[in-house]
Amino acid sequence: MRKIVDLNCDMGEGFGHWSYGDAPDEDLMAVISSANVATGFHAGDPNSMNRVAGLAKAHGVGLGAHPAYNDLQGFGRRKIDAADDELVNDILYQVGALREFGRRHDVPLQHVKPHGALYMEAARNEDLSRHLVETLQATAPDLILFCMGAAITHEVARRHSHPVVREFYSDREYGADGMIVFTRKGAQMDPEQIAQKCLRACREGVVETVDGKDIKVEFESICFHSDTPGALEIGRAIRKTLTENGIAIAPAADVLAQSNS
Amino acid sequence: MRKIVDLNCDMGEGFGHWSYGDAPDEDLMAVISSANVATGFHAGDPNSMNRVAGLAKAHGVGLGAHPAYNDLQGFGRRKIDAADDELVNDILYQVGALREFGRRHDVPLQHVKPHGALYMEAARNEDLSRHLVETLQATAPDLILFCMGAAITHEVARRHSHPVVREFYSDREYGADGMIVFTRKGAQMDPEQIAQKCLRACREGVVETVDGKDIKVEFESICFHSDTPGALEIGRAIRKTLTENGIAIAPAADVLAQSNS
Amino acid sequence: MRKIVDLNCDMGEGFGHWSYGDAPDEDLMAVISSANVATGFHAGDPNSMNRVAGLAKAHGVGLGAHPAYNDLQGFGRRKIDAADDELVNDILYQVGALREFGRRHDVPLQHVKPHGALYMEAARNEDLSRHLVETLQATAPDLILFCMGAAITHEVARRHSHPVVREFYSDREYGADGMIVFTRKGAQMDPEQIAQKCLRACREGVVETVDGKDIKVEFESICFHSDTPGALEIGRAIRKTLTENGIAIAPAADVLAQSNS
Amino acid sequence: MRKIVDLNCDMGEGFGHWSYGDAPDEDLMAVISSANVATGFHAGDPNSMNRVAGLAKAHGVGLGAHPAYNDLQGFGRRKIDAADDELVNDILYQVGALREFGRRHDVPLQHVKPHGALYMEAARNEDLSRHLVETLQATAPDLILFCMGAAITHEVARRHSHPVVREFYSDREYGADGMIVFTRKGAQMDPEQIAQKCLRACREGVVETVDGKDIKVEFESICFHSDTPGALEIGRAIRKTLTENGIAIAPAADVLAQSNS
Repeated sequence: MRKIVDLNCDMGEGFGHWSYGDAPDEDLMAVISSANVATGFHAGDPNSMNRVAGLAKAHGVGLGAHPAYNDLQGFGRRKIDAADDELVNDILYQVGALREFGRRHDVPLQHVKPHGALYMEAARNEDLSRHLVETLQATAPDLILFCMGAAITHEVARRHSHPVVREFYSDREYGADGMIVFTRKGAQMDPEQIAQKCLRACREGVVETVDGKDIKVEFESICFHSDTPGALEIGRAIRKTLTENGIAIAPAADVLAQSNS
Repeated sequence: MRKIVDLNCDMGEGFGHWSYGDAPDEDLMAVISSANVATGFHAGDPNSMNRVAGLAKAHGVGLGAHPAYNDLQGFGRRKIDAADDELVNDILYQVGALREFGRRHDVPLQHVKPHGALYMEAARNEDLSRHLVETLQATAPDLILFCMGAAITHEVARRHSHPVVREFYSDREYGADGMIVFTRKGAQMDPEQIAQKCLRACREGVVETVDGKDIKVEFESICFHSDTPGALEIGRAIRKTLTENGIAIAPAADVLAQSNS
Repeated sequence: MRKIVDLNCDMGEGFGHWSYGDAPDEDLMAVISSANVATGFHAGDPNSMNRVAGLAKAHGVGLGAHPAYNDLQGFGRRKIDAADDELVNDILYQVGALREFGRRHDVPLQHVKPHGALYMEAARNEDLSRHLVETLQATAPDLILFCMGAAITHEVARRHSHPVVREFYSDREYGADGMIVFTRKGAQMDPEQIAQKCLRACREGVVETVDGKDIKVEFESICFHSDTPGALEIGRAIRKTLTENGIAIAPAADVLAQSNS
Repeated sequence: MRKIVDLNCDMGEGFGHWSYGDAPDEDLMAVISSANVATGFHAGDPNSMNRVAGLAKAHGVGLGAHPAYNDLQGFGRRKIDAADDELVNDILYQVGALREFGRRHDVPLQHVKPHGALYMEAARNEDLSRHLVETLQATAPDLILFCMGAAITHEVARRHSHPVVREFYSDREYGADGMIVFTRKGAQMDPEQIAQKCLRACREGVVETVDGKDIKVEFESICFHSDTPGALEIGRAIRKTLTENGIAIAPAADVLAQSNS
């Protein structure tokens, strides 16, 4: 049973004068313990990165880069058939850009979580995962890599002893293979139901799939999406339910430190 | 009289499959002591940045960011009427991106030199210069700022005790006010003549203006442009002439350290 | 006194998955008679252009291109110091792109209205206005050019006998010089008040400035902005008030035809 | 045996201040009969499009759009996993933009040839080809579509009676399946050898594959690439050899008209 868990959410996914998601960033920041900050390739710009890094400092939230395919129009949800080394360079570029805003606000970069199609590609593509992990080993050996538990990325990171955090997707459905099923419900999800799903995952290590069966889930961080309708209420419900049941919410780095001690 | 001087040049100013300038990067790297690396806004991409950072390590060349207005089509030569804080965020974004490639190749970021229209704007605009210097003071107090000697940027940096390097433009003409005159000669410049101009500037601290008069120049780094026809020959001539006359060529950080000792 | 007037509004100013403004496009289209469609440089993408062109056909609305500086992050509100011929090429590119979607939906391109900082620059810069008008004369002699009444653009277009429409800005304040004053009120504007302002402008040809004095206004089209809070209510109030008072609302081409007959 | 054939080449594939290929555009234009003009997504910008459209007029060359995936860094050579309708909108956008520069220079748009990875994707993807052809049927029924003879695109266009031109790739190797083999020779290709290959293809309708066997080829246009080393000499050799052997070189529209008469 989990006694401590991270709660992460994507942040700063507007661009220029466009905003994204209903919940104010300040309110979300008060709920989560790790933020995945858009770094300009699928969303976000230097101004939003600066702003969110400042918020992360103010709220003691772990700062993470959320690099993506270079696809602003497609919000990073369309795979680009690029070579592994090109993609790793794209990731380093974005990681470094955010790290600098972290320096400005005196908050170290905690983690990196590829976004959208790049996240899914890394989960399936062992060569890309290995290329990424080996590069991070040389460049940023302490930078925690976020991935799904079922992703090949996790196995590769473990093999290289690179710090890695597995996510539990609170507002997504799971298939029998432990991968996320992209069938978004039309109706708004019930925050209380999501919170109970998270509590059960923490306590029992299982989640019910779309087929109605339980599968095992292992994770160090719970994810919810800032663009899910009612995101703020979902985040608040998760935090309330977990803490009331004796499960602490803390940045991913603290969760890993606890696990390793 | 100068006994030690930096020799800098812009690098990595292609984009994607387009290259720029005739001289191979490897050859230029063997001549210079500091490189200003394009960081993606006016030229350069993550792949070129990675490559040039590796070359800087191999050649012991000081690694510098060359941030620009976000204007790929205009090569950063067109002023964009953006707010100072937007521009500073743009600069931090680019600085951080390059710094990450420096981490990868184990070479610290030495300096930042705004490119093109942004360089000229900072030279004239005290508010922008102050905003930039104050931000660097908080974010990167050791990052050397490059500017023209006649630029307001220099005065602002001095006032804040921020490390600053003034440039002498070997392949540009000077006006009576010490600012660069943008009248590019049609004919190719003579490397030997340029080298003599540099030697005189180092020894006597003067340069002849377009009006035929001498003006005083103070500088710690000599700049030549990789897109000037015959750039490699120019760079080689400068290095040969200076070293043969007892003037050492070294990265800007070393030049500053010497000056301060 | 005006018996017929155009009512125009900006449309399709989202980008990718980002939307902009509160009012649904379909509802706005039912109110206006001319649409200024974002063409990808400050907002809009091929998908939104295709969609809005289809709506223009369905609603009998005049289709117009809304070209801008190439500045997605700044929403085209930051001047870029580009040469006149570069800007005219940028405009032609965007005009042609939208025209093709008009072809697809069998709706001819009616007008072009530069956006944001480019609109203001053309209003002040006679060389740019002349370069643009002369190019349109050769390329698209029937394409109506939108501008402010006080803009140099209007004078230049008249001189070249190029079709031109002057706008009355319903949701902006006027200064004593007839130019728009960019002091956006914090409070939401009252639709009824705006409608009365439009009615008076149509009937008496005057508007009250921020200084409380009346100035003369001449125009063939009334503009309101889709990002003004309550835009849909404003548009509906203008349409209702004008038509109830015997002033017909029709596409700019029809208004010009009427004026010339 | 062919008595008339088109000779096409990509043009305007620089961007901003970057140029591409060794041969001057003017010289290439004097050799070819159809130009595929980069339209800003993989290369090209409004200024280069304007310039090349003017050259097409001056040389009586057929003007064609060369639309691509939105991938400037990858030069359109990386597939983007976008929906068919998104890609068709991207193509229309680029086609329209170039058509406007054609209007300016009084030269009608003759053809469209998707570039790079998009060309290959259309060749394999029947849904995309059908979506594109059906849209062109509604929007631009006379716009000739260029494709490989072995491409599904050709079959789809024929089925819809849409004008289509098959290409013979003079400076590429063929596989046994009639598709191009991407094994670029290190050594520069011999212009005379290429010209003889073209002559044989025109006369006998065959080409030798990389396996040393002859396969049948059907085509209305011969393509060579402006970035192949020695492109200008290749183009000149083809023109000289064909015309000396009684095969006329003419724009694709003329070749089709001849075929249909």
